[in-house]
Amino acid sequence: MLTPQGTDFPRWYQDVLAKAELADNGPVRGTMVIRPYGYGLWERMVAEVDARIKDAGAENAYFPLFIPESYLTREAEHVEGFSPELAVVTHAGGKELEEPIVVRPTSETVIGEFMAKWIQSHRDLPLLLNQWANVVRWELRTRLFLRTSEFLWQEGHTAHATEVDAAAYARQIHLNVYQDFMENVLAMPVFIGRKTKQERFAGAVNTLACEAIMRDGKALQMATSHELGQNFAKAFDITYQGVDGTQQMAWTTSWGSSTRMVGGLIMCHGDDNGLRVPPRLASTQVVVMVIRDDEGVVDAATALAAELKAAGVRVRLDARTDTSFGRRATDWELKGVPVRVEVGPRDLANGEVTVVRRDTSEKQQTTVARLASTVPALLEDIQASMLAEATAFRDAHTVEVATVDEARDAAQTGFAKIAWSTLGTDGEAMLARDAITVRCIQRPDGTIPETEDEPGNIAIVARSY
Amino acid sequence: MLTPQGTDFPRWYQDVLAKAELADNGPVRGTMVIRPYGYGLWERMVAEVDARIKDAGAENAYFPLFIPESYLTREAEHVEGFSPELAVVTHAGGKELEEPIVVRPTSETVIGEFMAKWIQSHRDLPLLLNQWANVVRWELRTRLFLRTSEFLWQEGHTAHATEVDAAAYARQIHLNVYQDFMENVLAMPVFIGRKTKQERFAGAVNTLACEAIMRDGKALQMATSHELGQNFAKAFDITYQGVDGTQQMAWTTSWGSSTRMVGGLIMCHGDDNGLRVPPRLASTQVVVMVIRDDEGVVDAATALAAELKAAGVRVRLDARTDTSFGRRATDWELKGVPVRVEVGPRDLANGEVTVVRRDTSEKQQTTVARLASTVPALLEDIQASMLAEATAFRDAHTVEVATVDEARDAAQTGFAKIAWSTLGTDGEAMLARDAITVRCIQRPDGTIPETEDEPGNIAIVARSY
Repeated sequence: MLTPQGTDFPRWYQDVLAKAELADNGPVRGTMVIRPYGYGLWERMVAEVDARIKDAGAENAYFPLFIPESYLTREAEHVEGFSPELAVVTHAGGKELEEPIVVRPTSETVIGEFMAKWIQSHRDLPLLLNQWANVVRWELRTRLFLRTSEFLWQEGHTAHATEVDAAAYARQIHLNVYQDFMENVLAMPVFIGRKTKQERFAGAVNTLACEAIMRDGKALQMATSHELGQNFAKAFDITYQGVDGTQQMAWTTSWGSSTRMVGGLIMCHGDDNGLRVPPRLASTQVVVMVIRDDEGVVDAATALAAELKAAGVRVRLDARTDTSFGRRATDWELKGVPVRVEVGPRDLANGEVTVVRRDTSEKQQTTVARLASTVPALLEDIQASMLAEATAFRDAHTVEVATVDEARDAAQTGFAKIAWSTLGTDGEAMLARDAITVRCIQRPDGTIPETEDEPGNIAIVARSY
Repeated sequence: MLTPQGTDFPRWYQDVLAKAELADNGPVRGTMVIRPYGYGLWERMVAEVDARIKDAGAENAYFPLFIPESYLTREAEHVEGFSPELAVVTHAGGKELEEPIVVRPTSETVIGEFMAKWIQSHRDLPLLLNQWANVVRWELRTRLFLRTSEFLWQEGHTAHATEVDAAAYARQIHLNVYQDFMENVLAMPVFIGRKTKQERFAGAVNTLACEAIMRDGKALQMATSHELGQNFAKAFDITYQGVDGTQQMAWTTSWGSSTRMVGGLIMCHGDDNGLRVPPRLASTQVVVMVIRDDEGVVDAATALAAELKAAGVRVRLDARTDTSFGRRATDWELKGVPVRVEVGPRDLANGEVTVVRRDTSEKQQTTVARLASTVPALLEDIQASMLAEATAFRDAHTVEVATVDEARDAAQTGFAKIAWSTLGTDGEAMLARDAITVRCIQRPDGTIPETEDEPGNIAIVARSY
């Protein structure tokens, strides 16, 4: 049904998107239609990420889609980075506009303008904002979820009194929001570290990386958190009166994660039968399937679904017996629902149902009486197994190397770890010729170094999406 | 602090927006920055409306911001209605585009295109979609929340096998989602009915109205639900194979509610001291305020907040004693938090705290021990009182009249009800000269008539936002 991953991974990805009804190409180049099943994955991601952002003290707000073109030009690196990707509105309300309007590629500039207005005193700091929004970057090569002209994301923007406060907050978001969400909800292990100068966000003084491996051995950037230094504070005049009464310049950060995570989820966990959704993310954790509409089967399945719901499980009943059981089972497999409970007359006669795990395809009989009490633990077991499996895959595809040539070879099938003092910016440039990039620089223990040049720093290199 | 409503209502509205930190004007003409407190109101509206939409069986999806200009022109009335308000992207990625792109003013056209693709058989119907998105309509006169160039909304789009099914679904959404939400969460009574031909959505064969009265006697359209007949089905070729094997044309609906509801909430319930937020909507239902940081007061207030939280109340602790109590109390009043619990040393010595209702300003002493058990009922009482007060205000400002002249007079201070057979399209045109419009046509018992011309139909006319 699907092109096997081993035959053609990009085609497998396209097949999953189409057959699991996740997304379609929009009519305007590079845009995307997110279908209900795909959007359901995103909605659950939003809920989990949003809760963590609120726990970190940031509040949601909304800033305009349209930004005056002049705003973009105020921070030199920022405009250079985004200029080639801008969509520009030149006409509105039937007239040509006096100043062209840019459709936001990101909101540092417009938010900087309002931070300057709202921040007067040290009492107004830190100012911790987040917004859920669409942004537009006119990309040359697009791929659904991974790189689209318009995408959905959250972008956090904060202002702080000191450089230390700003750096600490960016790190807090990176670890407590992004890493925690990815590992504990998406069941995706991520490498955490700093980006090199080459790979930094346009306008940042430091970008924190969060990189996952896909099942074809390529890396995907799952989220980034930026220390913006005083670059935007200077460009937009974000100043405050300090405790001592003097005028001070603020320090800002920004951090984002997007619908790209849906693509990452698919390519990290998917297999030749389709998606595999980790239970903590799944909007349907268990589907109770009526095998055949024999006497008592629908009633038994309905009762089981109700019991599971009462046990706190996100459950769905599938009693569409006008469609063949095989076809429905394949469809739920394709959609990656973590557990199928198959209810049929033969099992029921023995007081049993069949429980099928999507992650391992294991089947086992369970008594009707015990089902609801065992499923919650089973879901947690699946969650843990999926993270363990993805971590084992990553470890098996991560090689420690000593030379740039070895790094190039290793990056054909996965990640290479090489001493940053060995690689350096020269080695980085050499690898770039083969489309291999430094995904992040980290300490030997996997933590984030304070600077690029700490002794012992490791560069992780890979091909990437 | 605020301009009194009686002195200058529009200025009162602007003052509330600024001083309660709800919203600011964006840098591009007509756009809006929604500040955290204002966005918090919208987030709660989204949660409540979204739950009702899901209960009605519709699923969320996401369609692109950008629509090819040619799509808009396929439905004649639709393009005529929206052409003057379009924002157009002519350049992207540094180049002029071959076909200009429209920033969606609404998504009937692009969703119609995909419905045509996804719907093949009668088994695919009904197709019930909703999306939460931003849309752009280049308006001449804008006012924050009420009419902005960009606004946030939900737009539902559905396709059905028959005209009867489509009409029934539009009505279901209108009553079970919109009316229920507005009356039971926003505590805003609404008049329900049909729009006249003049007031219909561009491309609809019937538009259902949901109209509220503001405290200056003007009407605000809070949501609309449209039967689109086969207009969009024909334009986009949304056909299906019927049960009998023949090719059939689908019937579609659309329905929306937006950030305008935030403006409605402010102008329906607000008073000279600021916002009044109904408890079911409020993200903070109760604020527990430390009056003075004397011995034991902060501890007592913290414990009370924890007890309230455990009782299911959305509570916030205000222990910012470096700001004066009076200033903080005024600020919570301005923000419309339904209940303030004031905790001070004198009351505490008697085992009491002071409970202040925002809606009536009533104060009463309650024992510390009884507080948590009495607050949930108090919140429900406030919710009911606010709906009763708003309903009484509306009834006092709604006059039954017999002539067009009387209708014109009555509309200076509120709503006029006049027999539709008396008013008719001629009367409608006469009132339009004085900026008075027919808000809806309803039956004498307040229900929605099947046709405009049912005998006994009443027209409700008013000035409006």
